[in-house]
Amino acid sequence: MSLQGFSVPLSPEGRASLACLPPWHYAGDLLVVAFEADPAAVKAVLPPGLEPDPDDPGGCVAFFVAWQYASEGGEEYLDPARGQYNEFILLVNALYRGQPVCTCPYIFVDKDTAMARGWIQGWPKKHGEVHTTRAFPLPSMAAPQVAPGGRFGGSLAADGRRLAEAVVELERPSDHPVSLGTRQVVNLRYFPRLAGGGKAKPAVCELVRSILSGAQRTDGWEGSADIKFFPAPDNELDAFQPVRVRRGYRHSMTMTIADLEVLEELDDVR
Amino acid sequence: MSLQGFSVPLSPEGRASLACLPPWHYAGDLLVVAFEADPAAVKAVLPPGLEPDPDDPGGCVAFFVAWQYASEGGEEYLDPARGQYNEFILLVNALYRGQPVCTCPYIFVDKDTAMARGWIQGWPKKHGEVHTTRAFPLPSMAAPQVAPGGRFGGSLAADGRRLAEAVVELERPSDHPVSLGTRQVVNLRYFPRLAGGGKAKPAVCELVRSILSGAQRTDGWEGSADIKFFPAPDNELDAFQPVRVRRGYRHSMTMTIADLEVLEELDDVR
Amino acid sequence: MSLQGFSVPLSPEGRASLACLPPWHYAGDLLVVAFEADPAAVKAVLPPGLEPDPDDPGGCVAFFVAWQYASEGGEEYLDPARGQYNEFILLVNALYRGQPVCTCPYIFVDKDTAMARGWIQGWPKKHGEVHTTRAFPLPSMAAPQVAPGGRFGGSLAADGRRLAEAVVELERPSDHPVSLGTRQVVNLRYFPRLAGGGKAKPAVCELVRSILSGAQRTDGWEGSADIKFFPAPDNELDAFQPVRVRRGYRHSMTMTIADLEVLEELDDVR
Amino acid sequence: MSLQGFSVPLSPEGRASLACLPPWHYAGDLLVVAFEADPAAVKAVLPPGLEPDPDDPGGCVAFFVAWQYASEGGEEYLDPARGQYNEFILLVNALYRGQPVCTCPYIFVDKDTAMARGWIQGWPKKHGEVHTTRAFPLPSMAAPQVAPGGRFGGSLAADGRRLAEAVVELERPSDHPVSLGTRQVVNLRYFPRLAGGGKAKPAVCELVRSILSGAQRTDGWEGSADIKFFPAPDNELDAFQPVRVRRGYRHSMTMTIADLEVLEELDDVR
Repeated sequence: MSLQGFSVPLSPEGRASLACLPPWHYAGDLLVVAFEADPAAVKAVLPPGLEPDPDDPGGCVAFFVAWQYASEGGEEYLDPARGQYNEFILLVNALYRGQPVCTCPYIFVDKDTAMARGWIQGWPKKHGEVHTTRAFPLPSMAAPQVAPGGRFGGSLAADGRRLAEAVVELERPSDHPVSLGTRQVVNLRYFPRLAGGGKAKPAVCELVRSILSGAQRTDGWEGSADIKFFPAPDNELDAFQPVRVRRGYRHSMTMTIADLEVLEELDDVR
Repeated sequence: MSLQGFSVPLSPEGRASLACLPPWHYAGDLLVVAFEADPAAVKAVLPPGLEPDPDDPGGCVAFFVAWQYASEGGEEYLDPARGQYNEFILLVNALYRGQPVCTCPYIFVDKDTAMARGWIQGWPKKHGEVHTTRAFPLPSMAAPQVAPGGRFGGSLAADGRRLAEAVVELERPSDHPVSLGTRQVVNLRYFPRLAGGGKAKPAVCELVRSILSGAQRTDGWEGSADIKFFPAPDNELDAFQPVRVRRGYRHSMTMTIADLEVLEELDDVR
Repeated sequence: MSLQGFSVPLSPEGRASLACLPPWHYAGDLLVVAFEADPAAVKAVLPPGLEPDPDDPGGCVAFFVAWQYASEGGEEYLDPARGQYNEFILLVNALYRGQPVCTCPYIFVDKDTAMARGWIQGWPKKHGEVHTTRAFPLPSMAAPQVAPGGRFGGSLAADGRRLAEAVVELERPSDHPVSLGTRQVVNLRYFPRLAGGGKAKPAVCELVRSILSGAQRTDGWEGSADIKFFPAPDNELDAFQPVRVRRGYRHSMTMTIADLEVLEELDDVR
Repeated sequence: MSLQGFSVPLSPEGRASLACLPPWHYAGDLLVVAFEADPAAVKAVLPPGLEPDPDDPGGCVAFFVAWQYASEGGEEYLDPARGQYNEFILLVNALYRGQPVCTCPYIFVDKDTAMARGWIQGWPKKHGEVHTTRAFPLPSMAAPQVAPGGRFGGSLAADGRRLAEAVVELERPSDHPVSLGTRQVVNLRYFPRLAGGGKAKPAVCELVRSILSGAQRTDGWEGSADIKFFPAPDNELDAFQPVRVRRGYRHSMTMTIADLEVLEELDDVR
């Protein structure tokens, strides 16, 4: 007679938990924009242990992703009101112990289950509305094809304020598309402590490395791109306004999350 | 110095209108379930001028569609927060002047612009949340492929109540997939009159025939299917609970709407 | 054996209709901002038959309202997922046949039923997310009281873009609060015709006068106010950027809508 | 040069964090239903350290709350798109070290910030759509008054499925209204560990006592009530289907959260 599940709320049957025990399976369509921000903006979001990458101090990548999710055998994708969600991810380049990595300062999803799995992994997810143009297999004035000249848009909003928007125009297949996993992701996993009024050391404060298993990718395409960020009282994305947009990419990928590597415990980061 | 646009709100520049002047371009991914309901349920929703099809008195088709839309040159699909929407359509078979047609008693969308364009065409759209499983080009536990055994789900909810759900399991390519346009669509275009307390003859009450131009379809797949409807105080979809589910289909299509044929004016239908 | 209801979708039992037969009962909490816009912006939205009010050529009023609705005996307010909605209304001053009136160029609601009842009455409603600060009977840092210094905010967003925001700081009870009904409302009731490609004369094009019956109002408060509009590709609200903000008001009201007066038929307005 | 804020995402200015440093101020309108569930359902959700209350083994209270929130000096209530949220809370009675307490197995909110503050305090929040009838100061067919016969509804839905609904009919002022704080709240604060595949001991697993400071309450009303729960694949609320509904209550309250008491660390609860 015990509680079941992996995250809150634990429950008698374990069906209520926001996150079940991994593995967690994902299939997503990605619109990706690589760009350069002010190196000071990148530096300002790095947790202790990460330092600016001197070879690419302003290097950033933004992702607009339409995901489908299923637990092991759970087939949540068949109930797409539960199994689908959309995500905006910002990754910034850094070095960890001299190795090129990236870290995620800001990330938005439109589903609570994805937010919970994110927190558990060290992705600092907030709620946002993310939309991405879908590719289409037929020519139409209402949709792009994955072909030269195909144009795809992405946008992010939260609480009725637009926070980011991007457009990518495909030019050609991409030999080396930028994707999730191009650089190792080192995130800050963090969970605060309220006892004592919020000023005590956090309960969880550690650098972690994301482990993507079974990642597969379709052939990717690349092209020119544009991305803009907008100010909001409760977000700081606009500090990453591009000083130069590098390249846009589009592809699909699958991956499985079943584990996480703790790199080091931190004392605090504030 | 005049107002611009096609629907309310007309505005100085015409940008504010929910619907602009056609043509309206659409590209959609369709999950389709053909089924038989109680013939009495079908008969009960037919407007004057339509009669039950004696060869298929309970014949119905439900669609779960993920659409992208653009006006002529408007490229709304590049701002997918505006250019995308999802739709549930119920079509029931009937005869019009002895010809096999179908008509739409109930239809739900998640975007005001689609609702407005619908009303104008005689589609009696309400707001609903519609989700459909997306196909995926790679094998994954989180998504189906368009291949034998690929399973796709669809659901409809309104105001936090689930109204419909379906699952289709693909078996093989389909020689004659059921789609939008398989039968001519004859709808009741209706706009009431409030002056006099709502009991006067409606301002608009006519049978119209939908005109889809430039419709193209990808190769379709078919397989077994299931669909269920649920009761709600402000919907009557559950009168169409299937007595037999026939077949499920999945394909993509493009179409353009630029015109409408008025078949006949009706006096009233109440 | 006929169809029931008042608006689409007509249905066998009439429960599915977006709008039932009136009377329609409303109870709302209103945050109101009276302001002056560029007179050219006001003039540009007036339909034929209305002309600028020379005594107040830029006069506008914006409303942020939290409504509860019920049909006659329907008690929809007991199922607040259906019976509540929020609304932003812009009214601009004008003359009709020499009499001071106002008209509504833009209005947004967050519920399909309210949008349908609006169209039927000549309110050109679109979907928008509207939020208004609620008054509170106890002192709190989290809520204002209806008392001197009480501050209330309102906002409007659509498709993830903020379109309007306002703040009102109460100073004192108001002898003559601006409200719905302060000036007669003359709206353009309009429903287009698609047959022929959208260029034919509209099916419905008439000036109508709103009839509020049984309106009651609580004691109102007034104070200083601010309001701002923001640009968006599919809205023209920002043409009404205030040149001067006059006054803010806050009160509650009830009303019943059961009829509409058609003032005159127009040929077209485009 | 460090990161600011209290929860993820920590950021250079601290504005991006879902939760800022407390104190957190709340003002809410509460609809409350006290009822008895199957004692086995209550027992099944108690974490180690809590045991059934032999004097009230099936005692439960459900809350539907419309909250306004502000941080210290943040005035978020003036931007109600950010500062308002709605919440459904289920509390079940129990004993902790022989003292009567209650604990929260399930709770739903419609805002990410509230979800984050909840997790941090040991409230196992998920996303849900919660609606509650608002009281109105004038008689109307569209709204209840706080007076004998006034009826108020509440509902909860998640992912387009209705999970709970309630109606309370007021009879008279209440001498001892059931509210938040009537019993001390002892919750399980829990944050899992993914490293090692999710089977390791959680990072945070402790019993905590909620500390409400500065709680004030308006005069409350009480009356007859009804409440129902509905099944869903990812929720277990329907295990609490009432065997007897006791009483409904309605009142408003303010409170401040600034601290939390850790009662004991647990090893694990699964």
